[in-house]
Amino acid sequence: MATLAVPETIPSASEDAEQIWKACKGWGTDETAIITILAHRDATQRKIIRLAFEEQYKENLILRLESELSGDLERAVYLWIFDPVEREAIIANIAVKKNIDYQAIIEIACVNSPKELLAVKEEYHARYKRSLEEDIAVHTVGDFRQACTSELWHIYTLALLVSLVSTYRYDGDETDTGVVRLEAKTLHDAIKSQTFNHSEVIRILSTRSKAQLCATFNYYKDEYGIPITKALTSESPNEFALALRMAIRCIVSPQKYFAKVLENAVGKAGTDEDALTRVIVMHAEKDLKVIKEIFHKRTNATLKHAVGTETCGHYNSFLLALVGN
Amino acid sequence: MATLAVPETIPSASEDAEQIWKACKGWGTDETAIITILAHRDATQRKIIRLAFEEQYKENLILRLESELSGDLERAVYLWIFDPVEREAIIANIAVKKNIDYQAIIEIACVNSPKELLAVKEEYHARYKRSLEEDIAVHTVGDFRQACTSELWHIYTLALLVSLVSTYRYDGDETDTGVVRLEAKTLHDAIKSQTFNHSEVIRILSTRSKAQLCATFNYYKDEYGIPITKALTSESPNEFALALRMAIRCIVSPQKYFAKVLENAVGKAGTDEDALTRVIVMHAEKDLKVIKEIFHKRTNATLKHAVGTETCGHYNSFLLALVGN
Repeated sequence: MATLAVPETIPSASEDAEQIWKACKGWGTDETAIITILAHRDATQRKIIRLAFEEQYKENLILRLESELSGDLERAVYLWIFDPVEREAIIANIAVKKNIDYQAIIEIACVNSPKELLAVKEEYHARYKRSLEEDIAVHTVGDFRQACTSELWHIYTLALLVSLVSTYRYDGDETDTGVVRLEAKTLHDAIKSQTFNHSEVIRILSTRSKAQLCATFNYYKDEYGIPITKALTSESPNEFALALRMAIRCIVSPQKYFAKVLENAVGKAGTDEDALTRVIVMHAEKDLKVIKEIFHKRTNATLKHAVGTETCGHYNSFLLALVGN
Repeated sequence: MATLAVPETIPSASEDAEQIWKACKGWGTDETAIITILAHRDATQRKIIRLAFEEQYKENLILRLESELSGDLERAVYLWIFDPVEREAIIANIAVKKNIDYQAIIEIACVNSPKELLAVKEEYHARYKRSLEEDIAVHTVGDFRQACTSELWHIYTLALLVSLVSTYRYDGDETDTGVVRLEAKTLHDAIKSQTFNHSEVIRILSTRSKAQLCATFNYYKDEYGIPITKALTSESPNEFALALRMAIRCIVSPQKYFAKVLENAVGKAGTDEDALTRVIVMHAEKDLKVIKEIFHKRTNATLKHAVGTETCGHYNSFLLALVGN
C-alpha cells in the first residue's frame, strides 16, 4: 500500500506546469510550491506535467529543477519525478558508476518480479546504450586464481550481482521438494565449510524461482535450526556473505528488509540520506505504508518522527509529504 | 529469405484438418498427404490447422501425428508444426535433457536477437515451469578448484552457456573503440596463454552487444593477423575453445555457420539427421535460401542434392519440400 497522497481534485497538468514555472522564475526558488505539487502527483501525472512543461516553456523540467534545487532535495526530487522503471534504471546506473554500490543493485535485482526487472533492463538499454549486465560485469577484474581472500570475496560478490541481474527467473508458484532438500543441504554445507562454494551458491540464489527459494530457506530453518540469513553472518561475515544475506532478505521479505534499511539510515551512526531518499522515493507509490508499520513496530517510533528529527529544511518537507500521515 | 513454398490459394484450415484426419484414419498412414499439406503452410496457418483439428476431432494434432509417424520423419514434423518460438523452447529443452547438447543451446542463445531469445525463454517458462537458465546451470556440478583439466574445460563451457542464455544484451549499433581495443587484447592474451582466463572471456562474449563484439573480432583480425575463430582452434582445441568458436560464429555470421553445420551433417562421417532436421526446420521459414547458396558455394553441390542422397523415404520428401527448389 502506497503512502502517496494525491488530492481528490487536482489542477490540469498545464496549470501545474505553470505553477512550477512561476516557482522557478527569477531570483530564488519557491521550493515549497514545487514540493506541494510534485509530492502529491502520481507517476502518470508527473509524466504529463513534464510533457506540459516542455511544450509550454520549451525547457526540460528535470534539467530546470536540477538547476533550481540543490543537495539532498535536488537528488530526491530528481529520483521522484521519474516513473518507477525509469527511476530504477537511473538508480542502477548511479550504483554502477559509484564503483558498484551493491546494495542498490541487489534491491533492483531481487525485489522486482522477473518482468519488472526486465523492464528496468530495457529502460537501461534505451538510456545508456549498454546493458546493465555488461556495466556490472566489466568491474569483475582480477583473476580469482591469484586473488587473496578478501579480493576473492569481492570477485564472488560481483559474480553474484551479474548473475542476479542477468537471469530471467521463472515466476510461478510451483516448488520441487526434492530440489528444496538437496539445495538446502548444498547451501548448508557451503556456509558451514566457510569456503562458500561460490559457484553453487550463486547458481541457486540467482537461477531458482522465488517460490522455490522461499521453500528452500524454510526447509533450511526447519532442518538446521537456524535461519539461513543468521547462519550466513554468525561468524565475522565477509563481503560475499553480506551480499548473499541481503539478496535473500530482498527475495523473502522485501518490506522487512526496507524497514531495516530505513532503521539503519536514521540510526545512531548518523543519517544516510541516500538510503533514506532511495527507500522513501521508491516505495511511496508502492508499499511504504507496510514498511512504515514494520518500522514502527521495530523501533517504537514512527517513520514520520524519525524523518522529522533526522532531516531538515525543504528536504525534510519533501520526504514527509511522501511518507504521509 | 525463406525456402518455404506456400501455394497461392490454399484450402481452409478446416479442410486441411480434415485431409490430415483422413490421412491418419484407419490402418496405415498416408504420410504423403500429411507432408503435402504441412510442409506448405506457414507458422500461422499451421497453428490454425492445429486449432481446427482439435475443435473438429477433439484430439490433439501433435499427439496424433506422433502416434502416426515414426523415426526421423516424426521428429522433423514434430519440430516443424510449432511456431519458431515454441520450437526453440522445445529444442532447448531437448538439449538440456540430452545432458546439455551445447550446440543447440549456443545457436538459440547467439543467433537470436535479444528480444527473440527472451521470447524463447518466456515460452520455456510457460511450458516447463522452470527457467532455461536454471535447467542449464544445474548441470554445473563439480568444484573447479579440484577439477582436472578436461573437467575444467567442461565446467567453463557450462558457465559460458549459462551466461549466454542469461544475459539480456544491448541490441544497438553503437560501438566503443576503446573497449574494442582493450577487449581484443584481453581475448588475445587469454587465447595465447592457453589458460583462457575463462571469466574474462565469458564476460566479454556473453555481455557485450553483437555490434560491439563484431567490431572487437574485426580489430582482432587486423591487429593479430588471424581471425579469432582460427586462433581459438589453432592448436588441439579443448571443449571450451570449441564452444567459444561456435558462439562467435553464431554471432558474426549465422548463415555461414549453419551452412557448415549442414555440410558436416551430410559429410563423410555419416548423416547426422538431428542436425539436418534442426537446421532445415528452423530456417525454412526464415533464411534457408541464403544458407543454401553458401552451402552450394562451399560444397559445389546443392543442398537438395545432398539431402536427396543422404536421406530416404518420407523423411526425404519432407525435407526436400522444405528445402524447395
